[in-house]
Amino acid sequence: MSPHSRMRSVLFAPASRPDVLRKLPRSGPDAVVLDLEDAVPPDGKVEARRHAREVGTELAVAHPELAVLVRVNARSSDWFTADVRDALAPALFGVVVPKVEAVADVEAVAGSLEDAGLSTLAVLAGIETAAGVARVEELLRPPVSAAYFGAEDFIADMGGTRTEAGIEVLYARSRVALAARLTGVHAIDQIVASFDDDERFLVDGREGQAIGYRGKLCIHPAQVRLANEIFSPSADELDRARRLLAAYEQARRAGEAAIAFEGQMVDQPMARRARATLELDDTTPDDVAEQGR
Amino acid sequence: MSPHSRMRSVLFAPASRPDVLRKLPRSGPDAVVLDLEDAVPPDGKVEARRHAREVGTELAVAHPELAVLVRVNARSSDWFTADVRDALAPALFGVVVPKVEAVADVEAVAGSLEDAGLSTLAVLAGIETAAGVARVEELLRPPVSAAYFGAEDFIADMGGTRTEAGIEVLYARSRVALAARLTGVHAIDQIVASFDDDERFLVDGREGQAIGYRGKLCIHPAQVRLANEIFSPSADELDRARRLLAAYEQARRAGEAAIAFEGQMVDQPMARRARATLELDDTTPDDVAEQGR
Amino acid sequence: MSPHSRMRSVLFAPASRPDVLRKLPRSGPDAVVLDLEDAVPPDGKVEARRHAREVGTELAVAHPELAVLVRVNARSSDWFTADVRDALAPALFGVVVPKVEAVADVEAVAGSLEDAGLSTLAVLAGIETAAGVARVEELLRPPVSAAYFGAEDFIADMGGTRTEAGIEVLYARSRVALAARLTGVHAIDQIVASFDDDERFLVDGREGQAIGYRGKLCIHPAQVRLANEIFSPSADELDRARRLLAAYEQARRAGEAAIAFEGQMVDQPMARRARATLELDDTTPDDVAEQGR
Repeated sequence: MSPHSRMRSVLFAPASRPDVLRKLPRSGPDAVVLDLEDAVPPDGKVEARRHAREVGTELAVAHPELAVLVRVNARSSDWFTADVRDALAPALFGVVVPKVEAVADVEAVAGSLEDAGLSTLAVLAGIETAAGVARVEELLRPPVSAAYFGAEDFIADMGGTRTEAGIEVLYARSRVALAARLTGVHAIDQIVASFDDDERFLVDGREGQAIGYRGKLCIHPAQVRLANEIFSPSADELDRARRLLAAYEQARRAGEAAIAFEGQMVDQPMARRARATLELDDTTPDDVAEQGR
Repeated sequence: MSPHSRMRSVLFAPASRPDVLRKLPRSGPDAVVLDLEDAVPPDGKVEARRHAREVGTELAVAHPELAVLVRVNARSSDWFTADVRDALAPALFGVVVPKVEAVADVEAVAGSLEDAGLSTLAVLAGIETAAGVARVEELLRPPVSAAYFGAEDFIADMGGTRTEAGIEVLYARSRVALAARLTGVHAIDQIVASFDDDERFLVDGREGQAIGYRGKLCIHPAQVRLANEIFSPSADELDRARRLLAAYEQARRAGEAAIAFEGQMVDQPMARRARATLELDDTTPDDVAEQGR
Repeated sequence: MSPHSRMRSVLFAPASRPDVLRKLPRSGPDAVVLDLEDAVPPDGKVEARRHAREVGTELAVAHPELAVLVRVNARSSDWFTADVRDALAPALFGVVVPKVEAVADVEAVAGSLEDAGLSTLAVLAGIETAAGVARVEELLRPPVSAAYFGAEDFIADMGGTRTEAGIEVLYARSRVALAARLTGVHAIDQIVASFDDDERFLVDGREGQAIGYRGKLCIHPAQVRLANEIFSPSADELDRARRLLAAYEQARRAGEAAIAFEGQMVDQPMARRARATLELDDTTPDDVAEQGR
């Protein structure tokens, strides 16, 4: 698993603002997204593409532990082709594709990346329309390796309204998380628009974590610390994972497929989960994200 | 789009009570339903059919802005055939079919209407059984142009219980709204049984609006004003829609497919949505509903 | 319908503890499950199988009104085959299969039971993984006649967290109940882990009842009385069911297919539901469950 598979915090900024982009690593996010879509007006797309490619490469080189991605415009937009051609670069970790809502979208993205010699880029799909949610089970498949649920755009597409309690998106938010789990896709939870309300972010983020999300979209640097906290394992969880793995490895060396650990049988899926837990830890040696702060 | 596509408030009354039916327009509903099903006992069906046809036609002629519909009994009932034959009339806006739960139901309704020379009638489908919810994605298709979610019947069919918080129907209510959105069907939200509790109706109705419903079933005239309020756009929304459409039309006349409007790209779907918003407005000139009060 | 189709309360205990197993009927559960899975460590499985078979048979013979089941280990585990071979017996009411998540699981269970000459045993499927929930519509089919939703295992599999409010499992819990309703499978609701918190159990159980569940998993004898209370019809409901059935039977004897009862048409499905309501009653003569206490 790549160190980039973590992505507890995914921080967005407009690709049109190179000064803002260069400061993105400061708050300690696991991933940053240089955004060509919502945040950039039509007449700024061309210049923003150049910033995305240049600053994206710069950030990826300077912060190898940081997952650097560029969000292109939706495949159905007039900008998609030029976005892929001019804004992406091999040094990036991946590309974020908003409003994915048909298998053809996923295939087109894969094809475009291949044509551009960028098949190594990870694809993060935005599920944020009625059609995207209704077909999420078929959309989350290779090359898609991560996905976010975009509650604001989804509910706008439904003709509904976002509320603080959020019951209006619970069905969609739950369904996206389940589909992601089934295909091994890293699920990233909805934004919290009120970026100066820490309590709101924590409540909403913990809900997302409870449902099964692994990280959260951040629209402000102040949200990054909170997201990292929400999606990090506790000391107890880390400790248990370390002990479980030690027992499992010992059993394997002894030639046994399954072992008893604290009254439960430990099998390969449980060992895998324990390893994933340890990878989420900020204090593990291979995690250089913290050093970049 | 027909002016009848609005249907923020859909007021029901027993077809067996012509006196009540004649008063229905008074509270200002967007749609009225002359009900042959739940509200009419078996021995009253024949006479109720006659009232539905006569008073239905009378209301439709006197109030061209009002969507007048008749609810027949379920397709599986012994009354369905005679209901279609004797209770419907060409002057009506449409027919409401309760407990739709199989594609065969939809096809049978379409066939019956055609045989009766009534293919012009809109079909409003009741999704209110376990099977209806489980197959809603295939049921909401032509000739169905509108659908309501019947929470009381659904939960009775599930063997469950309706509660005020309503979490027991959130899954079904959300799924029906999503299916409706995908097929362009007008989604109408569940009833509130306690018809003298305005606060309850407002809370429940705003939840439905947040989820994506466009209107609400009303079982009492006092609920109509509340439903119209919940599902009407605000002054700000109307203003924005007018400005957006003006900019879009100007761009189209100049030969451009997409334009920037207040920092966002405006495309055809957004223009369509803006037009739909304006059509929901009570104060637009073509809305004669208010004059009928 | 078998008297065992009731299962309002389904009480679990480790098959490794014959002393505990023998006391299970005391709290008055509708069903008891002698558990070979979670509660029994790997090195205790062989002995636990023997207890399950012996005490299971003993309980079934002594308490014919009690549904006695054995929970085997998951089909994917190394223990499944020996569990079926050594722990089951013809006197049992059924077998509980945890973590059912593929049609192949259901088929393998059916095949194993047939090979063992135990096809008469009822199959209760545990839906408690992401894959199980995602495929629940195809899993709940013969020979599965009952199913439980395992919230703790499901959310662990999702990588999420159980909370008291429980919104993180509402989607899955609702979907399982709907699938069960459609295939006539008896749906049994999630456990409440805090077994000394009656209020918590009542709130959670009433939610499950509202959604459409017919019974609840119990992990402590003190929960049995509460489950029986939650899933029993009220005196009013019983009274109505009795009157409805009387009217229906009278009409049938008179050769009529449908009758009016208190303003509503009564058809066969309603009569069936009324009968099911009466069967849930503790005070009906054929209910010997109470005598066993």
